[in-house]
Order: sequence, then structure tokens, then C-alpha cells
Amino acid sequence: MRFIEGGITLVEGIRCSGIKEGKKGLGIIECSGNAAGVFTKNRIKAAPVLVTMENLKAGAIRGIIANSGNANAFTGESGIKNAKRMCEILAERLGCSWRKIVVASTGIIGEQLDVGWIESRAGVVFENLGSDRESSLAFAKSIMTTDTFPKEVAVEIGDAVITGVAKGAGMIAPNMATMLSFIFTDADFSGHDLKKMLIRAVDRSFNVTVVDGDTSTNDMVLLVSTGQKKVSREKFQRGLNSACINLAKQIAKDGEGATKLIEVIVEGARSDKEAFKAARNIASSLLVKTALFGNDPNWGRIIAALGYSGCDVDECISIAFEAGARVELVKRGEILDAHSEARKLLEKSKELKILVNLHKGNGKGYAFGCDLSYDYVRINAEYTT
Amino acid sequence: MRFIEGGITLVEGIRCSGIKEGKKGLGIIECSGNAAGVFTKNRIKAAPVLVTMENLKAGAIRGIIANSGNANAFTGESGIKNAKRMCEILAERLGCSWRKIVVASTGIIGEQLDVGWIESRAGVVFENLGSDRESSLAFAKSIMTTDTFPKEVAVEIGDAVITGVAKGAGMIAPNMATMLSFIFTDADFSGHDLKKMLIRAVDRSFNVTVVDGDTSTNDMVLLVSTGQKKVSREKFQRGLNSACINLAKQIAKDGEGATKLIEVIVEGARSDKEAFKAARNIASSLLVKTALFGNDPNWGRIIAALGYSGCDVDECISIAFEAGARVELVKRGEILDAHSEARKLLEKSKELKILVNLHKGNGKGYAFGCDLSYDYVRINAEYTT
Repeated sequence: MRFIEGGITLVEGIRCSGIKEGKKGLGIIECSGNAAGVFTKNRIKAAPVLVTMENLKAGAIRGIIANSGNANAFTGESGIKNAKRMCEILAERLGCSWRKIVVASTGIIGEQLDVGWIESRAGVVFENLGSDRESSLAFAKSIMTTDTFPKEVAVEIGDAVITGVAKGAGMIAPNMATMLSFIFTDADFSGHDLKKMLIRAVDRSFNVTVVDGDTSTNDMVLLVSTGQKKVSREKFQRGLNSACINLAKQIAKDGEGATKLIEVIVEGARSDKEAFKAARNIASSLLVKTALFGNDPNWGRIIAALGYSGCDVDECISIAFEAGARVELVKRGEILDAHSEARKLLEKSKELKILVNLHKGNGKGYAFGCDLSYDYVRINAEYTT
Repeated sequence: MRFIEGGITLVEGIRCSGIKEGKKGLGIIECSGNAAGVFTKNRIKAAPVLVTMENLKAGAIRGIIANSGNANAFTGESGIKNAKRMCEILAERLGCSWRKIVVASTGIIGEQLDVGWIESRAGVVFENLGSDRESSLAFAKSIMTTDTFPKEVAVEIGDAVITGVAKGAGMIAPNMATMLSFIFTDADFSGHDLKKMLIRAVDRSFNVTVVDGDTSTNDMVLLVSTGQKKVSREKFQRGLNSACINLAKQIAKDGEGATKLIEVIVEGARSDKEAFKAARNIASSLLVKTALFGNDPNWGRIIAALGYSGCDVDECISIAFEAGARVELVKRGEILDAHSEARKLLEKSKELKILVNLHKGNGKGYAFGCDLSYDYVRINAEYTT
């Protein structure tokens, strides 16, 4: 398994395109194959989520249509109608039932979708569908909201490939977020198998990614198998995990206003479950996040976050920072004199690992997150205005 | 029951004082009586918390010594020794066992306490113990960290009074925070009764107060009964609840960098428990908090926060803002055209009520919180430097 350069169109048979006009975007992907999805756990699910969940029951799709700028959430019956209309707009052009289409939306909640705009732009997007590098980038950009860069991944597993695209930025929390991700492969699996493997991969990637602890109404991760390549389940799962973790890290790195990608790695917990919980609590702590923004190696806040994680912890904890070099801050409860060294490490690092050992057992877990900056506040205080 | 002007010394027999020098503060209270405490649920408990929990087992105390600037947390055996030494410093002067002293600390984690400084200042603080207005204010100020104003309350119930002092500011979350509160009454109750009533009051006041979701290692709420006045349990509980709610709101209002006190009131939930959970989720949402800072009536984020609260909700929700005037935003799922009116209300309000009705049952609950501003980030990015 190795990462390769390129976007979703590296999978044979994928054609896509997209446009962005101000805050509005429209993207289309043509993809025939078995499909499975994982969706937001928010009780209030956006109309496109409800329609897609229904459409995926047949297990095979023909295409994807996604818009940015409006979430089509909390929009009642009109919202459902508009989400179906989006499916029809693509289905008419592909010559298939609207039931074979996945629809996704991201953006502001509680405003009716401007379907007229989507209708008027669908023609040109459809005409531009392509399988080159430019086409995959155009789609990646069309679904961005407050994202500052498009997020793509490609992984090679023997003959087969797995490719993916995602958007994230704000509202990213454990149990997903306003996060859309579409993943493709030419490895041959049934919808049922795809679903099982996708759940496992999402659980250890997007679901351990924290930007601000909020969970959106619109989250969706889709996995589509278009091809006939044979790959073992085990190899595929490994590749899928790597692809999802890579996209999840890109999302954390591009957290609204973030200046640092934070990877929290907890070892020595009583169980993996506790280790993941502890890691998530550290990655979620506003006090930890603001300290890291200020390049302040305030490990006391890490200790406090561990203490209220509900995990079995005592003062016998080890904490280190790693970014190229490694600085140990606390070793089995002993406080080391490393404040200025740690500060220097923080000042120059854009990607930081926080390594924690609880010395209680063999449980391992991790979480991805980012720091909390002035810009997070600015972006979110001024979103609708 | 009515609120009256004044501080903790309104309860007869209470004498106190305090000093603040830069980031360091020292406060002392002389108070003979039955006592009960509620403590942080953080697994990593600061040394003064551990010592006080032990000392309170006898159910009666003679005095309180508290310092600010250093939390004496994650300080191992030396920390315990220093917390006991603080008790002794006061016990020697009061002529009692150190076991009769409550000790509390707030401030930075993981640095050894400067007991020398406390020892050298204890004499002057003790000499200045008084029962006037100035003395109670001096104590209230001595325990402040990033607080911007001292927090006091006094309530009259018939002949008796309940008075309280608190410090809060950052790290305030459901299940308490770096929050210290000392409450006094001349109503006569046993330590056992005080404990039961305190738990109930804390559960509906400090425990529903959210500043940033972090829970500190040092939280403590103490209730001391010094007198012989007779008050019914029911009346006392009501008075105690009011006093705690008043202090909790002051803490929320003074949340680090906060510009607005937010009171979330949820009705129509399936149960009170669900209503409290929903209210807390709204008060904790960073997206809601940043929107309110930006005076943006983005009720979509309130809906999203309700959706992932785990409570029974659907789109039939009503949401209104109240600050003097009342603006309805959503009525039984119907979106009302009130954006500019709501924005105006937000712009001029320092105290905002968010009223939510889930239309599912009779459950009621509430939470206190504040908005999230640039200053929260500034304060917490630069704390130890």
C-alpha cells in the first residue's frame, strides 16, 4: 500500500466536475457501482441525508450531486422536494432513476435551497465532466465552504486504487461533522461489504477528528466500488483506513482558523476504548487548544483533560511533544524542566504530536484536532452576515 | 426569601480578610460550625481538595485558608505536605487542630506552591480579619484569578441569612470547574443535612454552568452553618438554590472574555433530565457561542446542537430570544422572518435568554453560559507566559 499523487478520477470510470460562484458551489460525479454510506448521528438530519439514506438502500448508484453554500437542513417538506429535485437534475442527464443518485449539501441551515441556481448551472457542470486531474480538483473545490484548501487522497493497493475527496473545516467533532467525503475504488466489493469496511474506517478516522465538538446535520461519507479488481478484504481495509485517516488529518489541519494540526496519541490505557476517549478529551479541550495556539506548553491542561475523561488515570502519567524532535514534559508523574525547549518546538511546528502514556495497561488510541485561534472566533462570529 | 446587599460577613461570627499581590492571593475566613463540601469530579484532584475532603469528614470546621495563583495540583507528596502546611498556618493562629481547617487553591497546575509566601503573608491577613463589608470584599478579591469582578451573594430567609462568595472565570463546565465557592448561613443544620441540600443546589446551579467545557482539578463548594437560627428545610433549600444560582450566573457572566450572559431555558422535553441535557448542549456549543458573540441570530446552530444532544427532538421546535423584549425565531418548526429584529436585540443585550420548546412533553431544564470571544482565546493562549 502506498500513497500516490492524484484525485478521485484515478479510479477508472469516474468522471466529475464542479463550479464555485461566490459562496455557492455545485459538483457532479458520474460513478457506476456498489455504494455504501455512513451518516451524521444528529437527530435533525438534513433533507439530502434523508434522501441519500433511502436511495442507498438498493446498494448501487450512478452518480453524485453536491452543493455548497446551503445545507438544505431544517427545511421541512420543501427541503425533501428540493433534495429529490437535485437527484432528478442529474438522473435526467444520466438517463437513470433519481433513486440511483446520491445528493449532498453543506452550508447554512434553515434556508430553502435555491434549486433554480442549481438547475441553471447543472448543464455546464455536466458538459465539463472529465477524468483528468483538473476535473477532480474542480469537484473538490466546488464543495468547499470555509475550507482553505481542497482535500484529496489516492492510495494504491496492488493493482487497485482507493481515491477520495472531502470537505470539512468547521463543526467537526467526534461522530462526524459538516463533513462530506466521497471515496472510490476499483476493487470489487458488494454494498454490504463496503458498508462494514467503511464503518470501521470512519470510526478510526473521521470520528476521532475534533475541530469544535459540534456535530452537523449534513455529514456523509460515501464509498463507491466501480471496478472489478480483486483485493483481499484485509488489504483493502488497511488501504481504506489509511485513505480516511489521511483525509481526516487534512480536515483537522484545515480546522477553521487552525494554525496547527494536533495528533494526540495515548498509550498505556486500560483498554483501547479508554485510550481513544482520553485522546479525544485532550483534542477537544478548549484550554489545551488555546494554549497550543499561544505556543504555551501548558501540560497541566492536558492532565486536567485526562482527569475528567472518565478514564482510569492517576498522577503517574508521561507526556511528550513531538514535531521532528521530541521533548518530554512529564515522565511517570515527574515534572521535567523542559518548558522553554517545548515552547521552541511549538513555535516552529505546524504539525504536533502529543504523546501520552497512562502506564495502566496496553490500550492505545488517538485523535486528530487543531488549535483554537482568534480566526476561529472571527469566522464563526461572522458566518451568516 | 429576598436578596440583600452585602457579603459573607452578614452571617454572624464570620470574620475574613485577604490580600492580592500580582497573581498571588491569600484569603482567610474564620468560621466555626458544621460544614459540608462538594468537590471536582476530575480524577486528578488537587492536593487541597484531597486534604479538605479528609478534614470535612468530622463535619465541623473552624476556618478556611485559600490561595490564588497556584492550584497545588499534580504536585505529588510535596503538594499534600504544602496543603497540610496551609492548614497548620491557620490552625496555629486559631488554636485548633489542622484537621478543622478547609484549604483551597486555584491557579496554575503542576508547580509547587510557594508556601513561604503564604507563611509570610498569613500574619497580616489574620490580623486584618474583620466582619465589615470591606473584609468580605477583600476575601472575594483575594481568590480571583482571571475573574474581572468579585462575586458575592446574600439572601435573607426569615430571621436567617445565607451568604456566599465565589471565583470562577475559565475552565467552568457542567460538573463544576476551577470554581471555588464558600457559602455560609446562621440557620442551624447538621453536616449531614447541609451536604444533602448542597448537593441538590449545586446540581442545579454550578453544575449547569458552562464556560468552556473543561473541568478543573480544584473545584470546591463549601457550605458552613455557624448559627442557631431555625429555618425549615424547604425554605432553606429554596434560599440556597437561589444563592447558588445567583453565584453561578455571576460566574457565567464573567466567563473568560465573555460579553454576554446566556441563559438557556428548555421546555417541552420528554423529561427534566433531557431538558437539562439539551440546554447544556446549546450552552456548550462553540458555534452557538461564537454566533452570539457576533450578534448573529444563527438559530440553525441551536437546532444542530439540539439534534446531537441525544434528546428526543424533531423539526417541530420553537426558539425565541429574550432580553427585555422577546423575539420569536422559529415557531413549531416554522421559520419566522425575524433575523434583523433578533440581531438588534443581540446587539444591545448583555444578558440573553434563549427559550426553546421541544413540544414533546413537560420536561423543563436550563443552563447558564456565555459567548466565546477573541478575548477568551487571548486570555488562554497567554496564561502561563
